[in-house]
Amino acid sequence: MNAVFTDHIRFDKEAWQLQLLDQRKLPSHEEYVICSTLRQAISAIQNMVVRGAPAIGVTAGFAAVLAAREVLAETQDSQLFTTTLENRLHELSQARPTAVNLSWAVNRLRRVLRQHQDEPPKKILELFLDEALNMQAEDIRICQSIGANGGSLLNDGDCVLTHCNAGALATAGFGTALGVIRGAIAQGKKISVIADETRPFLQGARLTCWELARDQIPVTLACDNACALLMQQGRIQCVVVGADRIAANGDTANKIGTFGCALLAKHFSIPFYVAAPLSTIDLSLTDGSAIPIEERPAEEVSHIFGQPITPSDVAVFNYAFDVTKAELISAIITEVGVLRPPYASSIAWAFTKGLLQ
Amino acid sequence: MNAVFTDHIRFDKEAWQLQLLDQRKLPSHEEYVICSTLRQAISAIQNMVVRGAPAIGVTAGFAAVLAAREVLAETQDSQLFTTTLENRLHELSQARPTAVNLSWAVNRLRRVLRQHQDEPPKKILELFLDEALNMQAEDIRICQSIGANGGSLLNDGDCVLTHCNAGALATAGFGTALGVIRGAIAQGKKISVIADETRPFLQGARLTCWELARDQIPVTLACDNACALLMQQGRIQCVVVGADRIAANGDTANKIGTFGCALLAKHFSIPFYVAAPLSTIDLSLTDGSAIPIEERPAEEVSHIFGQPITPSDVAVFNYAFDVTKAELISAIITEVGVLRPPYASSIAWAFTKGLLQ
Repeated sequence: MNAVFTDHIRFDKEAWQLQLLDQRKLPSHEEYVICSTLRQAISAIQNMVVRGAPAIGVTAGFAAVLAAREVLAETQDSQLFTTTLENRLHELSQARPTAVNLSWAVNRLRRVLRQHQDEPPKKILELFLDEALNMQAEDIRICQSIGANGGSLLNDGDCVLTHCNAGALATAGFGTALGVIRGAIAQGKKISVIADETRPFLQGARLTCWELARDQIPVTLACDNACALLMQQGRIQCVVVGADRIAANGDTANKIGTFGCALLAKHFSIPFYVAAPLSTIDLSLTDGSAIPIEERPAEEVSHIFGQPITPSDVAVFNYAFDVTKAELISAIITEVGVLRPPYASSIAWAFTKGLLQ
Repeated sequence: MNAVFTDHIRFDKEAWQLQLLDQRKLPSHEEYVICSTLRQAISAIQNMVVRGAPAIGVTAGFAAVLAAREVLAETQDSQLFTTTLENRLHELSQARPTAVNLSWAVNRLRRVLRQHQDEPPKKILELFLDEALNMQAEDIRICQSIGANGGSLLNDGDCVLTHCNAGALATAGFGTALGVIRGAIAQGKKISVIADETRPFLQGARLTCWELARDQIPVTLACDNACALLMQQGRIQCVVVGADRIAANGDTANKIGTFGCALLAKHFSIPFYVAAPLSTIDLSLTDGSAIPIEERPAEEVSHIFGQPITPSDVAVFNYAFDVTKAELISAIITEVGVLRPPYASSIAWAFTKGLLQ
């Protein structure tokens, strides 16, 4: 495997199949979940076969292709095709609430549909596939730009703490936070990583360590609760994480535990960086208070490998995300550049620049 | 089960057996590990069949009884008995490094040995058993005093965050941190608890939730990394934790993750309390920097229920404890009273008062 690793989201154009590497089973098993219908693709997103905001976006693109094909089988009537497909796209956009890349991706397909609603449905299906493939290719290029931009923030010899998995597996390839690490290494710097295991889904232990070990990037696994000690010991020079949704003022929703890392980093005066594409920024929200925080099933916390870790009558909190205030974030690393506070203006600048590219 | 629950550390005087509820298997299985030899008892401490500073102390008392009986079987010669037993006690005191209650307990037995070295070894064995049983009974009374003293710090309706298990299972019974919660409830207050699951050993999920659920105390389980979000949501009115070793200035070693909770509590202006008997205070250490922090096997982090959660070549940090600076601690709750900063003087006062009791 090389760092770009794009093999986890595959679309088979002959079979009209979306093939997703089942991230729930890594690192022990490398198995694919096959989605031939919109319903299957939505389930895969909801059950976290695929996760990570940009990867969810790319998956949603292909899910929209499956939706278009299904509707085409139901009707050849242009108007009915458009209406029905719009409804299906809406359903897709609701699969998970926090990562804005999902609705961002669906909106891109919706635009294709609206711009071409006079074309025959068959043509629209082709255009959908083109757009989904474009989005996948684009996402890799964007991650590489994030890596190049963010890599310059890291110093030779740095040890980077990362939380959850914002790697190749969380994107179409290369990664956002791990893209920054790969970018720094590509610049000739020696970088090591501490990966928070990231309960309850263990993305850090299962996915980040797997990705980095395969790239021969030195990685050490730690439980989430070791963060303060490891910072106190001087082991961590900076924190780099991904994002699921960033408000217009820079407040950032990311995997549960990110907010705590950011507060601890501030206490120890350690730079805290967020790496994300512009598609993760939601300009419609002035701040993070309106970002919907998904609550997931209790069983994800109360059971591990199907075995209970607590008595069956115990209640559970399972918020999947938290919001880190912009004031705790040293920089937001995007494909168009490194944004610094105040984010309201640097984000606005980034979107202008992004549109010009 | 009632709150005192002393059934987890049993000494069968007929069979000369130490019977320990296997805390590694809770809550799914209630099984006992039988220790007939010092070696078995040391293994049980090292392998965390029993854990929690005061419980380790009480277990060490009974382990010393097993040691005395073994040496008695080897020799009746008083001088050889004393020398050999001293060596075995030293070995016992080294079983785990961080909890000072272990050496505190061994020192109590060592004093019995030295004060009675002219008595026949058989008599010393009897005195050892008396002392071990005294220590067990004392520990329960001490926890009840901690509960009464600390209970007054909690307000009716409070939700308390606790980390790891400082409950009946971590003591001879009743608990230190959970003793404070039980003390508050005994005072007629309505208290609920949020239990950090406490990776990697999951003492919070497996032991604290089990204990509290059996006492019908409302408890909600959360992953360690949810702490900042739950505090931000206003769900937590105070934090109460136990301790493994407290230096003379109040710096406190406790389960990994405690330090992070304390830093987050400070950020959110939430009181942070440590509950521990005087036997956990190590007056020989001026501050926490000299407290030895145990590193445990990587497999405790890299595997869950025997299954790997990360690739086999990934390095792991598994520090079992961290040290919370005294300045982050709102009060230390002991059996002689609630100690407030500056701890150098309040701890000195507590020891004077403790000696007078």
